[in-house]
Amino acid sequence: MGEAGLEGADLELAVGGRRLRFPAVWLRDNCPCAGCVAPGTGQKLKDITDIPNGLAITLTEDTGQSVALTFAPDQHRSVFTRSWLAGHALDGYGGGDGRTEDDKQLWVPAELAEIPRMSWPRYLAEGRAQALEAVLRLGFVLLHDVPAEPGMVLEVAASFGFVRETNYGRLFDVRVEPQPGNLAFTSRAIRPHTDNPYRDPVPTVQLLHCLRAAGDGGCTGLVDGFAAAAAFRATDAGSFGTLARTPIPFGYIDKETELRASVPLIQLSPRGRVRGVRFNNRSARPLRLPYDEVTAFYAAYRRWAGLLARPERQLSLRLAQGDCLIFDNTRVLHARTAFGLTAGSPGRHLQGCYADLDGLASTLAVLRRPEEP
Amino acid sequence: MGEAGLEGADLELAVGGRRLRFPAVWLRDNCPCAGCVAPGTGQKLKDITDIPNGLAITLTEDTGQSVALTFAPDQHRSVFTRSWLAGHALDGYGGGDGRTEDDKQLWVPAELAEIPRMSWPRYLAEGRAQALEAVLRLGFVLLHDVPAEPGMVLEVAASFGFVRETNYGRLFDVRVEPQPGNLAFTSRAIRPHTDNPYRDPVPTVQLLHCLRAAGDGGCTGLVDGFAAAAAFRATDAGSFGTLARTPIPFGYIDKETELRASVPLIQLSPRGRVRGVRFNNRSARPLRLPYDEVTAFYAAYRRWAGLLARPERQLSLRLAQGDCLIFDNTRVLHARTAFGLTAGSPGRHLQGCYADLDGLASTLAVLRRPEEP
Repeated sequence: MGEAGLEGADLELAVGGRRLRFPAVWLRDNCPCAGCVAPGTGQKLKDITDIPNGLAITLTEDTGQSVALTFAPDQHRSVFTRSWLAGHALDGYGGGDGRTEDDKQLWVPAELAEIPRMSWPRYLAEGRAQALEAVLRLGFVLLHDVPAEPGMVLEVAASFGFVRETNYGRLFDVRVEPQPGNLAFTSRAIRPHTDNPYRDPVPTVQLLHCLRAAGDGGCTGLVDGFAAAAAFRATDAGSFGTLARTPIPFGYIDKETELRASVPLIQLSPRGRVRGVRFNNRSARPLRLPYDEVTAFYAAYRRWAGLLARPERQLSLRLAQGDCLIFDNTRVLHARTAFGLTAGSPGRHLQGCYADLDGLASTLAVLRRPEEP
Repeated sequence: MGEAGLEGADLELAVGGRRLRFPAVWLRDNCPCAGCVAPGTGQKLKDITDIPNGLAITLTEDTGQSVALTFAPDQHRSVFTRSWLAGHALDGYGGGDGRTEDDKQLWVPAELAEIPRMSWPRYLAEGRAQALEAVLRLGFVLLHDVPAEPGMVLEVAASFGFVRETNYGRLFDVRVEPQPGNLAFTSRAIRPHTDNPYRDPVPTVQLLHCLRAAGDGGCTGLVDGFAAAAAFRATDAGSFGTLARTPIPFGYIDKETELRASVPLIQLSPRGRVRGVRFNNRSARPLRLPYDEVTAFYAAYRRWAGLLARPERQLSLRLAQGDCLIFDNTRVLHARTAFGLTAGSPGRHLQGCYADLDGLASTLAVLRRPEEP
């Protein structure tokens, strides 16, 4: 149906040399009139069950800029601009949320032209959008000259989103403790991992703020898990598939807490694209599958772990006092080297907290809105 | 390998008439010795890459109660009890996290022998585990006689977990507003839906606390989305599959916020079991897929919406002053009927907040621990 007066279940329209086609139900569900969409919020006022069956459209007017349609059987009238229709053509996959590998810049350290870094004063003054964009695109940003004051990490989180409180508190101290409830609170080396794999929903953003650097050791390493997963799929698609299909039980127990989550090490979108990685052998609980699946899983797991451990995949940073790392905990693995403890010296002290990517992306989207005239 | 002294890559063992078989790498990864597991935390000290290749086991001792193994090539020694091995036999799928349809009691209202209800004093004194268990098993619990004081909903959330702060605040007021930023803040009827589909991670628990009941109307409805999904799969597997495979763009925009998430209406575990539902046409954004996929999606979507809207699936509750509903926002859809506004009357007023299922399940697990002697 492309000429005024014709009736059909589809709208067919020429826009700038392209031939576009839209089903009546899609058009009706997206009708922008004030009876269908609440002014101000953009929320739809109609449920899908409010739309009559057996819709047909009559194109009642075509101004060139916009088309007016009347729907049978209820004579509802809608007006769509051609530019909006052209921007929503049904000829591909749009409307994603930026969370899969397809919307990221994958990296190994050698390919990173520079490390995304910014001073806290610049972040506050003008750089916030650029820094948040780095977290979404590369998976991390390093802020420096953040005042090395206890609790400051919460202020950094509040600058882009909402703190996710957990059993570790709103914030947690990463330093050597006499009776550590977690290996993080020792001076041991910790290899690349993601945090809190025993939580669902997992915290999707992590912040680590250095209040006092290690005198010796305690370097931070970052690995792009999405880049690693893409490389793994390219070289060993069978093992990649095994990991994506196998939920792994993770757990954490202390006196007040008993968490468990069962999630694959590589999480795919329904279209098969990488959307998340979890990797943390410390918190893995015994896998209980039929014998053959266990042996297949371990073979794949060891290959994946070997790939993630390759030195050329790990970016090494030395957090100095006042540095605050913000990273995507669904994508970027973090690690640290062991550090020395000198009797009488106060030792390395970080404060960390968790937040979420959806709030971060929202803040970025608002910052990027065109200024109102 | 079942006799002491024999060597192999597997352990084979007879336990209570069953023949069990464990691969060496699985045993080594689960070695409970103090060198492999941190005392106290139960966290593993070894990464998977610390385990040597080409493992073989020698069964060096079998006391009947336990077996001692020595691993080649590094002579590591592990002791496992027979009861632990029997409890972790590799002959099926164990170690889930309770979040799929398989670990739920699915319901339609006619099958619910009684509505899970409990008074706030009883909840505080002795009933907490029973109430939280209802949220995990049935998807909701109704607490009554919760003091009808502003902010009390945060205290209810803190009794089992952590508040998930969002752009709506730590808590939000559900009442008629002069310039509503959301349809929730009007007197309109709202059909069954889940909250915040435009958020990833979505808040997995919602609380609604009634400070003042509606004089007229404003009834709350609940629908078990997992039961509906199971019924949908049984009657229309093709449409079910279409919904599970198709990410739907959801969005929310206001002056300070711009959220989007692209997630299927029915979310499956990697093993194909229902693990989440999202349903909220108000916040759905234009679907952009190739034409044929759009028409297939809408056909499936309308069937699914029709099934969810069936009156026999909806449990009707009338929230009285002091009632607080706690429900699983990944499973249970909630609705309300329109309510009257009498000039001069103060009108219906709820306070709500979000929290998460992992914290709730942790609290329940701790409550159920056997008391220490």
